[in-house]
Amino acid sequence: MQRKIRVTDTTLRDGHQSLWATRMRLEDMVPIIEKMDQIGYHSVEVWGGATFDVCMRYLNEDPWERLRILRSHFKKTKLQMLLRGQSLVGYTHYADDLVEAFVHKAVENGMDIIRIFDALNDIRNMEAAMRYAKKAGAHVQAAIVYTISPVHTMEHYVETAVRLAEMGADSLCIKDMAGLLLPFKSRELVTKIKEKVDLPLQMHTHYIGGMAVGALLKGIEAGVDVFDAAALPLAFGASQPPIETVVRALSDTEYDTGLDIHALFEITRYFEDLRKRLGYSRGVTRINDMQVFDHQVPGGMISNLVSQLEEQKAGHRLNEVLQEIPSVRSDMGYPPLVTPTSQIIGTQAVLNVLLGERYKIVPGEVKGYVKGLYGKPPAPLNPEVAQRILKGDQPIEGRPADQLPPAMERLRRELGPLAHSEEDVISYGLFPQVALKFFDYRKNPQAQLGLLNDKSSKEGTGVIPHPVQE
Amino acid sequence: MQRKIRVTDTTLRDGHQSLWATRMRLEDMVPIIEKMDQIGYHSVEVWGGATFDVCMRYLNEDPWERLRILRSHFKKTKLQMLLRGQSLVGYTHYADDLVEAFVHKAVENGMDIIRIFDALNDIRNMEAAMRYAKKAGAHVQAAIVYTISPVHTMEHYVETAVRLAEMGADSLCIKDMAGLLLPFKSRELVTKIKEKVDLPLQMHTHYIGGMAVGALLKGIEAGVDVFDAAALPLAFGASQPPIETVVRALSDTEYDTGLDIHALFEITRYFEDLRKRLGYSRGVTRINDMQVFDHQVPGGMISNLVSQLEEQKAGHRLNEVLQEIPSVRSDMGYPPLVTPTSQIIGTQAVLNVLLGERYKIVPGEVKGYVKGLYGKPPAPLNPEVAQRILKGDQPIEGRPADQLPPAMERLRRELGPLAHSEEDVISYGLFPQVALKFFDYRKNPQAQLGLLNDKSSKEGTGVIPHPVQE
Ligand SMILES: [Co+2]
Ligand SMILES: [Co+2]
Repeated sequence: MQRKIRVTDTTLRDGHQSLWATRMRLEDMVPIIEKMDQIGYHSVEVWGGATFDVCMRYLNEDPWERLRILRSHFKKTKLQMLLRGQSLVGYTHYADDLVEAFVHKAVENGMDIIRIFDALNDIRNMEAAMRYAKKAGAHVQAAIVYTISPVHTMEHYVETAVRLAEMGADSLCIKDMAGLLLPFKSRELVTKIKEKVDLPLQMHTHYIGGMAVGALLKGIEAGVDVFDAAALPLAFGASQPPIETVVRALSDTEYDTGLDIHALFEITRYFEDLRKRLGYSRGVTRINDMQVFDHQVPGGMISNLVSQLEEQKAGHRLNEVLQEIPSVRSDMGYPPLVTPTSQIIGTQAVLNVLLGERYKIVPGEVKGYVKGLYGKPPAPLNPEVAQRILKGDQPIEGRPADQLPPAMERLRRELGPLAHSEEDVISYGLFPQVALKFFDYRKNPQAQLGLLNDKSSKEGTGVIPHPVQE
Repeated sequence: MQRKIRVTDTTLRDGHQSLWATRMRLEDMVPIIEKMDQIGYHSVEVWGGATFDVCMRYLNEDPWERLRILRSHFKKTKLQMLLRGQSLVGYTHYADDLVEAFVHKAVENGMDIIRIFDALNDIRNMEAAMRYAKKAGAHVQAAIVYTISPVHTMEHYVETAVRLAEMGADSLCIKDMAGLLLPFKSRELVTKIKEKVDLPLQMHTHYIGGMAVGALLKGIEAGVDVFDAAALPLAFGASQPPIETVVRALSDTEYDTGLDIHALFEITRYFEDLRKRLGYSRGVTRINDMQVFDHQVPGGMISNLVSQLEEQKAGHRLNEVLQEIPSVRSDMGYPPLVTPTSQIIGTQAVLNVLLGERYKIVPGEVKGYVKGLYGKPPAPLNPEVAQRILKGDQPIEGRPADQLPPAMERLRRELGPLAHSEEDVISYGLFPQVALKFFDYRKNPQAQLGLLNDKSSKEGTGVIPHPVQE
């Protein structure tokens, strides 16, 4: 029985987020869009995740303007984005009215499919975003974060899938951000979800230790309808598997994608030239990546840890930190490691190693986590550690965002005439300081060039951003 | 039903042949052997292929001495080698008595498993080697070369498998040297071979465009018993898939290998340090590798083509050559591209492109091929091209080696007192000039240091080889 498998190209979002620190500029995307638009992808993931923040913070681009321009060039292909549930594209929970405004504006500016997840699979953190996205007319894809722990059983995933379907998801996604999904587990997971939920199922994996192609193949055999992959120069390593490999692997089978491999090669050639021009390395699998099953740290986060450690002249202690992470994760009730929990657990592990005493210093985010401000941990916390951190304080019980008063009126008031649009108010609500700096830059780009703080941009700071105008 | 899958580690042969130009020295192997010997591999591939030639030609090592020392250190693990049928470890067919002597001495010096293939799947070229290997007491593994062409049907492969079994093979191998075996084709091929032949089946793949892990998984599900893989630092790209990935993918399934992944990591750490010390790059997948289904050129050969072209200041014409290769291959009756047919077809394609006229110059090897000196091409040759090349000469009909008189007596006579052993006579028979130079070096290594011609060794020429003595 022929079952045409569809493809989401992630090159313009997760691909460069995973390998190029999210630094691909709009001007480097536009020249290839016409060709990409002809491929017949199910969708292209182009927005959300870290792109929003990085646009303003490092690239002096307005993320909303980027979205509109992408929309205008992708005439046929659906646009897809990644949304961190109540955290939207940020690192903390936001008030419901900000969630509503964000999602509404994303759709108004051209977004078609919104993939919504919560780092803890706490579906209360997805409710508002799903409801508003649905109301705004988006295709709501609810994602289940995949990890490995004593409490992350098949039943947990299937139950989460069932509840997300009940909440109105238009499709589901298995989100394997750390490349942990083994091929035969993939088959089992997909089979069990498909038995209970009659919705299209997408699979999102990262290459990391090399499981991704196998996980996709076994998942597709078991019922996956759509998979994520990136163009070769932005695939492998911390990124997705290469689209050309999976399309080829499925060709002339009952799962044929129907995509033209030679048309895909033309796109790959463009990104390969871009990669060389910008000086980025290919994605590769290192021994640390192979050990992801021990430490669970996604490839992209290992480089963050290295930076954190090197700032403290402790780069040689990476292995100790990678060993401490599973221990902190266990204390914290086995959260999946994905933004923001990966940063929360990672930072605490670094502190534990460098200070030579566990939980001697506990950053605010870890306190917030223990207090329940990110939702309900998958398993009970280590009671001794929780007690030491809370110091008699009580964790909250309900949905974290219930603690947050409406924000939009306050934000509008604070920003006043600095806001050119409702989108500006939202940008400010998400990243106040970054947005203010960006608005300042926008007023007079030339004058601000000397002040650009884009230290980590591979493209240097001397380039004047010149967004394509329609 | 539990079916324990076994693993052949190829790091010490195909791994460095594919990625390090076969330049790993014995002294860099010995320190890790004790750990490798504890793993419980089905076998380790450590000899044959290009290693024999490169030992003498570039490393000033005696390949026989290498084998004996490897044998002495691998106390528990079976040693495996690759043999090119009647071409042994060379590039031309040799007389039967030289084949017998080679195989006999390989076993006497410690070889357990001999994988025998012919580049054209012409089993007449495998008969002598199989017979003598069996007589010498080796495990005879007969390999079927996998390629894609109008005449390489499932029936061709299955029929070849049946005949190799009839010829006394102890096991079979599917040899996918260019990473062309798609996962679902792998399932079909393995299923059909297993239906007809009740022998252990091993799968040898190269990573190239990324099919290998999928091909192994589907092959294993369908009945593959043993697979080839290399330690991570010598895997990916033109080499095998990483052993750690496949072992992990099968863990806790009915196909569990039983290997200890953390013990494998210790071996990987050794080779990663070695890789860095010697300055070799990781195996990666480039766009040319993705296009292997068009040009069929194995990754290792692309770098040869680039060298050939650059010598003619024509490096920029690689793509034209990659396009010409399928055309020459079609003229030549669709040989699989593997040593020596890959070189034969590749060189002709380079000439056709550079001279601007096809078959204007035809090298001796191509004439020999057209004359049938390498065996029977899978399909009839393009008659016009064959006529132009043969110029009225008649192709031979029978087994090529039937044309060759016995060689050993002549070789012994020619070499005289220069031979310290029967092994020396064989080395001389295979590579006369290289062997003579090596014997010369061996007499007085110090004096010869200035004459070393190891231009392409990454380790430089200033290092005195000091083989470990037992
Ligand atoms: Co991702
Ligand atoms: Co090989």
